[in-house]
Amino acid sequence: MKELRNTEIAVVGLGLMGGSIAGALQGRCRSVVGIGRRESTIEAAIERGLVDRATDDLASGVREADVVILATPVRTIMQQIREVIPLLSEGALLMDLGSTKVEIMKEMDSLPEHVQPVGGHPMCGKEESGIGVAESSLYEGCTFILTPLPRTSETALALARELVAAVGARPLELNASRHDFLLSPISHLPYLLSCSLVETADVMSSPDGAAWEIVAGGFRDTSRLAGSDVRMLVDTLCTNQNNVKKALETCQEQLHQLALLVERADEGEMEETLSAIREKRRQMFS
Amino acid sequence: MKELRNTEIAVVGLGLMGGSIAGALQGRCRSVVGIGRRESTIEAAIERGLVDRATDDLASGVREADVVILATPVRTIMQQIREVIPLLSEGALLMDLGSTKVEIMKEMDSLPEHVQPVGGHPMCGKEESGIGVAESSLYEGCTFILTPLPRTSETALALARELVAAVGARPLELNASRHDFLLSPISHLPYLLSCSLVETADVMSSPDGAAWEIVAGGFRDTSRLAGSDVRMLVDTLCTNQNNVKKALETCQEQLHQLALLVERADEGEMEETLSAIREKRRQMFS
Repeated sequence: MKELRNTEIAVVGLGLMGGSIAGALQGRCRSVVGIGRRESTIEAAIERGLVDRATDDLASGVREADVVILATPVRTIMQQIREVIPLLSEGALLMDLGSTKVEIMKEMDSLPEHVQPVGGHPMCGKEESGIGVAESSLYEGCTFILTPLPRTSETALALARELVAAVGARPLELNASRHDFLLSPISHLPYLLSCSLVETADVMSSPDGAAWEIVAGGFRDTSRLAGSDVRMLVDTLCTNQNNVKKALETCQEQLHQLALLVERADEGEMEETLSAIREKRRQMFS
Repeated sequence: MKELRNTEIAVVGLGLMGGSIAGALQGRCRSVVGIGRRESTIEAAIERGLVDRATDDLASGVREADVVILATPVRTIMQQIREVIPLLSEGALLMDLGSTKVEIMKEMDSLPEHVQPVGGHPMCGKEESGIGVAESSLYEGCTFILTPLPRTSETALALARELVAAVGARPLELNASRHDFLLSPISHLPYLLSCSLVETADVMSSPDGAAWEIVAGGFRDTSRLAGSDVRMLVDTLCTNQNNVKKALETCQEQLHQLALLVERADEGEMEETLSAIREKRRQMFS
């Protein structure tokens, strides 16, 4: 397996994540090829200098690539894995940036032996999507999860780690099921809570025109994720159903406990419980 | 009733909100007196130039004041209203910055006739509390709710509006019960959702050391309010129980609907529902 600086890297999907990783890899490898669907996206990727060349043809885009990165929503990735199989060159590394990993790694397991699979999930993003908001610095300082399969070779994994470090991120290895379990309360549940907040505020406050004059920073932050890219979230939720269900059930129970706390209105108990939660959060970010 | 520039203003409570409004009123009135409990707070308020003078004695602090602003947690405000009654000068305006209004305005209604009551609730704040993070610009650009009573005179209300404008905020009049109802989904529920998220993540993810390496911006934002000042929130929740209960029930129902959506995993339905929520949020902030 080549060193990163000698590789040609193909990035499939030129949105926020794909456009940004292409840009971040410029100068770190031999060349970066972008594969997009729309003419305007392809033009933007070239104009902004995020890729060396770009095409809408998957076959010609990945044919010479030593590393292929799939940067599309989860279920598109699953389909692209099947499409890309006959096109990949001997010894190529196939990586993805999908936000759930179990289903994707099942597909990856069916790759021919001469191709090396590794899952990826960078813990960064933006509220907006598309190549217009892509930037080479997006990955700097973030944790970048890698989910190898038992069949993934040490040298392939080493190349993946080198790539992660090259874009400024910290690699963290997790197996796919541990990844999907952990992400359900840390990423998928916050999205659904945000959505439930928007719906509740809409039901209770929207009839009163004053409501949106008094929306402050707290509501803005807590509801921010409800503005996320829907296409990506639908795929995420549909490929992590059981873990998301478990996170929702656990959270419903926690909310029920908080409702009882408000109902009892025992000042001492309330102060103790809420202080403990405050302290837990402080430790999560310490 | 005097014009703002001729008034002496006493601010009771020199934390984030009190210290900041004192500082913002400097130069807009004749003088600003701060009343704090701790010697260190009083010294800090003077040192930072937020007040002209400061004392720990309520009686001497408010005796000459034309406007008294109570900037403490809700139930402390309720107690201070009773304490301050015999101390206020003829024609004084008594205002508060408490985050619920029904209970406070009930207390305000028992003020002697020669004192003018008006409730206040500025829609701004910070995660941190205390005079150390107070700043004169805190109120700039925020909506500042005013809750007059039927007995509040037009001139008193005009002075309150002038004060709000002087600190850079936009006054918005609401009656107390409309305020408390609207704030439950817009402010108190987001806090409880944040808390339930921290608890859920703690229950599900904390046993795995990797959890906190992968916490990203989404979790940070959605859980931010769980780090709020507990003392203030306990008072808020205890003085708005019924509305908070209603908001929690509505939200539990919305979460239940989202759980069913995930369970059915009907791609089209999911995309439609989540897109509608995304659009609602966009409109809330447009």
